[in-house]
Amino acid sequence: MNENKLYFMSDYMEGARPEILKRLVETNLEKSPGYGTDAYSEAAREKIRAAVGVNDADVYFLVGGTQANATVIDAMLASWQGVVAARTGHINVHEAGAVEFSGHKVIELEQQNGKLSAQTVKKYLDAYFGDMNRDHVVMPGLVYISHPTELGTLYSLKELKALSRVCRKAGVRLYLDGARLAYALACPENDVTLRDIARLCDAFYIGGTKCGALFGEAVVFPKKGSVPHFFTIVKQHGALLAKGRIAALQFDALFTDGLYETVGKNAIDAANRIRKALVEKGYRFAIDTPTNQIFVVLDEETDARLSEGAELDFWEKLEDGRVIKRIATSWATTEEDVERLIGML
Amino acid sequence: MNENKLYFMSDYMEGARPEILKRLVETNLEKSPGYGTDAYSEAAREKIRAAVGVNDADVYFLVGGTQANATVIDAMLASWQGVVAARTGHINVHEAGAVEFSGHKVIELEQQNGKLSAQTVKKYLDAYFGDMNRDHVVMPGLVYISHPTELGTLYSLKELKALSRVCRKAGVRLYLDGARLAYALACPENDVTLRDIARLCDAFYIGGTKCGALFGEAVVFPKKGSVPHFFTIVKQHGALLAKGRIAALQFDALFTDGLYETVGKNAIDAANRIRKALVEKGYRFAIDTPTNQIFVVLDEETDARLSEGAELDFWEKLEDGRVIKRIATSWATTEEDVERLIGML
Amino acid sequence: MNENKLYFMSDYMEGARPEILKRLVETNLEKSPGYGTDAYSEAAREKIRAAVGVNDADVYFLVGGTQANATVIDAMLASWQGVVAARTGHINVHEAGAVEFSGHKVIELEQQNGKLSAQTVKKYLDAYFGDMNRDHVVMPGLVYISHPTELGTLYSLKELKALSRVCRKAGVRLYLDGARLAYALACPENDVTLRDIARLCDAFYIGGTKCGALFGEAVVFPKKGSVPHFFTIVKQHGALLAKGRIAALQFDALFTDGLYETVGKNAIDAANRIRKALVEKGYRFAIDTPTNQIFVVLDEETDARLSEGAELDFWEKLEDGRVIKRIATSWATTEEDVERLIGML
Amino acid sequence: MNENKLYFMSDYMEGARPEILKRLVETNLEKSPGYGTDAYSEAAREKIRAAVGVNDADVYFLVGGTQANATVIDAMLASWQGVVAARTGHINVHEAGAVEFSGHKVIELEQQNGKLSAQTVKKYLDAYFGDMNRDHVVMPGLVYISHPTELGTLYSLKELKALSRVCRKAGVRLYLDGARLAYALACPENDVTLRDIARLCDAFYIGGTKCGALFGEAVVFPKKGSVPHFFTIVKQHGALLAKGRIAALQFDALFTDGLYETVGKNAIDAANRIRKALVEKGYRFAIDTPTNQIFVVLDEETDARLSEGAELDFWEKLEDGRVIKRIATSWATTEEDVERLIGML
Repeated sequence: MNENKLYFMSDYMEGARPEILKRLVETNLEKSPGYGTDAYSEAAREKIRAAVGVNDADVYFLVGGTQANATVIDAMLASWQGVVAARTGHINVHEAGAVEFSGHKVIELEQQNGKLSAQTVKKYLDAYFGDMNRDHVVMPGLVYISHPTELGTLYSLKELKALSRVCRKAGVRLYLDGARLAYALACPENDVTLRDIARLCDAFYIGGTKCGALFGEAVVFPKKGSVPHFFTIVKQHGALLAKGRIAALQFDALFTDGLYETVGKNAIDAANRIRKALVEKGYRFAIDTPTNQIFVVLDEETDARLSEGAELDFWEKLEDGRVIKRIATSWATTEEDVERLIGML
Repeated sequence: MNENKLYFMSDYMEGARPEILKRLVETNLEKSPGYGTDAYSEAAREKIRAAVGVNDADVYFLVGGTQANATVIDAMLASWQGVVAARTGHINVHEAGAVEFSGHKVIELEQQNGKLSAQTVKKYLDAYFGDMNRDHVVMPGLVYISHPTELGTLYSLKELKALSRVCRKAGVRLYLDGARLAYALACPENDVTLRDIARLCDAFYIGGTKCGALFGEAVVFPKKGSVPHFFTIVKQHGALLAKGRIAALQFDALFTDGLYETVGKNAIDAANRIRKALVEKGYRFAIDTPTNQIFVVLDEETDARLSEGAELDFWEKLEDGRVIKRIATSWATTEEDVERLIGML
Repeated sequence: MNENKLYFMSDYMEGARPEILKRLVETNLEKSPGYGTDAYSEAAREKIRAAVGVNDADVYFLVGGTQANATVIDAMLASWQGVVAARTGHINVHEAGAVEFSGHKVIELEQQNGKLSAQTVKKYLDAYFGDMNRDHVVMPGLVYISHPTELGTLYSLKELKALSRVCRKAGVRLYLDGARLAYALACPENDVTLRDIARLCDAFYIGGTKCGALFGEAVVFPKKGSVPHFFTIVKQHGALLAKGRIAALQFDALFTDGLYETVGKNAIDAANRIRKALVEKGYRFAIDTPTNQIFVVLDEETDARLSEGAELDFWEKLEDGRVIKRIATSWATTEEDVERLIGML
Repeated sequence: MNENKLYFMSDYMEGARPEILKRLVETNLEKSPGYGTDAYSEAAREKIRAAVGVNDADVYFLVGGTQANATVIDAMLASWQGVVAARTGHINVHEAGAVEFSGHKVIELEQQNGKLSAQTVKKYLDAYFGDMNRDHVVMPGLVYISHPTELGTLYSLKELKALSRVCRKAGVRLYLDGARLAYALACPENDVTLRDIARLCDAFYIGGTKCGALFGEAVVFPKKGSVPHFFTIVKQHGALLAKGRIAALQFDALFTDGLYETVGKNAIDAANRIRKALVEKGYRFAIDTPTNQIFVVLDEETDARLSEGAELDFWEKLEDGRVIKRIATSWATTEEDVERLIGML
């Protein structure tokens, strides 16, 4: 990387919050049993149970997002069931077919701004369950959503409640991918809490990799025992960490003294300042987002000019020659970098 | 864990060698692109290429052993092929069916002390390729071995050469699981080098998790390009680290200034001192092993006595009431703990 | 079934053309080796090779359409690849996830009248191969089309040539599902011959189940040896018939004295007479089709009236209360039934 | 095939019992709905329910043995479970990995004469359920046996009861592969009835392909509803016949007027006469079998001499140069052929 350049390409460019490294260093030579059976893992699970407001929730620490999605989805589906997702859902487009690899169809539905509406899901479920030939068709066993979505948008509590209601009425479970959950929770626009998610969803994961950890995602099943033998399924998926505590300690740190909130706030504050500057300077957005991802439309000249000083993430080329670029802030974005970027706009 | 007790249960009870944490800390806030495309990942790959003596070997960093095995084996087999393994092979007994999960049969053969002999493999391959009905049978595409084996034993260079010859003659590839490779390389009894492995095998991994890293296994395909699209297969298996550098930095440290040798030597020195004491005090071994795992046979009384002061790993109960316990040393075993254990024998 | 009623529900309601049963009866007690290695299987393969104009094509006889699709697609894809299909493609909607069961994603694209256009496929392939992040995305290895389509429509030779060109240029293979191929070949509107298909596609199957056989689909790989170990893959999919000759004899009969043409002509003649009568009486079609499937829009009253005398296939309920019903003719449709149905319209 | 030669190579060399062809011919042009929803399928199910003595058993007609095994086993296992089988079990050696293809491990145990003993299974299950690390190991969900076995041997009722007891106590289900069941039922040595099997097993199939049908296996789940969504699983496996009645009519015929018994008796009478002649002439058997498969040990000279007049099935070459050949009789074996074979011995 070029030290004179700014980098706003993604939210996983740095290592981890210092508090996390500190925990790893200070516990380094302690001995503990493997596979998440140690005291640090249990402590981290307890903190997460407290944060989501479910005393006896099942909590597991996995390494990455695609891994968490593929493992949880496989675990929650019967072998002949599929998972419903927005066309733009991460599992449908950017996970190299990991869900299908475990034998399950991703049933893609129309989306709006990266979101599945309760109405779209209901219409589809009604059609499936009303189809006399449904036994020839993949049965939906789970609905997958992400919050924030892959496009940086947010479900409102009302929308999430409606989705949950539709799923529960149909006997289909709801799973929320929280890869960037810290950045949702820190948004003033967001009215969905961790407790809401735990109440309305049957499974979700709290993202670590993109939210201040070296790696790690905390999978939560609010209803204890609802996914039997998940430990073995994790192992079968090659997703079991020998030194489980390494992941757990990171979540322990993230859920101590409000660190997960701090992580989120840093990124959202930075994004909001950049967004404000963009608006003031007359830039246009490809999509309105309140979270840490900004999708800005640039003409060729502006794109060339900005590219000299700042690496943004290429998103899409429009037919008129303009490009969409993504600006991603994170827990590690500094005020200085924000100011420098704004100065270039 | 009880501070007054000794723990010799496994070689993954602690965190990582301090050199590794140091690297993570000092590079923590640097920015780098994801998925192993960063400069640290490339540097670590170069060091491993140098160590294995193949300039252009393909090297990938995965997180854990079961994950590495399942991903590599799936990548090297056609969908209708299976992998040959010793009955005691890790993939056959302790990976929760991860290989079968990807659709491939583990074809188990008889073993001696955890090892597959060239003769056993040849006899099986001759039978398969000589069988007129072989099109109804799973075709062997790969032979899996581990070094050291799950029982702590070692292949001699002669044995490895013979296996390699049998495989190459039959057009079947050879894969070596090096979860504890550091502990083989450090044994005086071992005459197999990293360069030998790279010359004689078609794939192998250099273990990090059990050999001084927080986590991580370095997968090596000595012949560049021999496993096309491995990156995508890694992603499909949910095994791709977003922050690839986190794994790579650990191998960079392990392959700097002979750290991987140091790691191995510490464990082997400790094991040899314990072994010597056991012999002197008249203990019997279930199997003779030169590496960091010692399998000792204990009568009930001795077992009870030792258990008061030291946690060993339960292995098997014999019909006469005696038990086999495993003593595992590691990169982190201290002289003091070794002395204390010997004192209890 | 009610003898006084007419049945136009599908094209697999009866047994088989009498010529087929005759062959089964007259060869019944002859002895032959299993699994398609017998003389009858070879004879049938020769007849199909002659019909498709490729002397050394690989030909296999499978039992059913979903089975043929799942087996061929799995055999032609690497484990990390997916298959492209129209949203309405049979593999995407009515095969219970059989393709995903073997680990492959069905990549659905927009369709027009059940067809994939070369333009749509090209746009998608260009986007995939132009995507810098394509290694995180399922790679398309095959394009699936059906002829006639699930909606009874046909590709023109020009359209098929364009699709083939796009696929070959991108190095992606083309597979044609010919479940109802006899009904395409017999259409005056059709300008695609078996030889065209063999020249333009990398695999296809000639449908038996819906075209006069008791069961059976003849899978053709025009390029000899292009799908290695297909026999074993068939067995692995549970799709290998012990008495291979039972399927082969049926295709031998279908490809003797123009029986496959006769089969097609009977259905198309019947469908054309019904279509003509529908037009004359002012009925409207949901989609224009030249093959043996007619999709007619009925108001509630007409639907109720017709349902008293004839069972048609329910297809879809429109929002205004009208329904779409499918009338399917077949090799077994009698003139008398056609006249009776027309009389009821 | 050479008309002057005798063929005793397998029990699937001919077509079907004439009664079966007669049923197909006489019902050929009747119309019926597909996928086993027709009246003939229901009638056949009723006859099988009566034969196995369970009024409300679930019965499905599949096409072949490997298909039935793979589909039933996948349907009865959770995705993370495996199936226990004898090392010589058909699913372990001659089904091209069809079970592993669906993601499940075949856990092979030692066998005696092709059989799994209750003791062997109990020892294994006790070890699994007593293993503190069992969550890292494939959990056994089902035990697979065949009757007759692949080696032509039979379970006694006592042995079957013991196996069933062991399985039920451990909460593991029992599945019986009846590919050649008619030949077991017709043996004087056999004391296991269809009703016993239905009472002691959780699933089994009654073989048609090798027992007088063109093709077809009747899968029975004695406990109604015990395998939910089996229809969809059959479809997902590509195993659903469009014209379900074609398979059902064959079982209807086999279970009318004792035809299944007749089929069995013909083969066993023929085998017994051949066995008697072999004994009288001093031949030796590789294994004692009471069913339709005879495994005879031949020296090179005798083998060469017999091969001139009769094709037997090559089984194995012994180290001393002698060979084991299999003589298989069937429903179609004629008295004349038996006499001619005996004349050659």
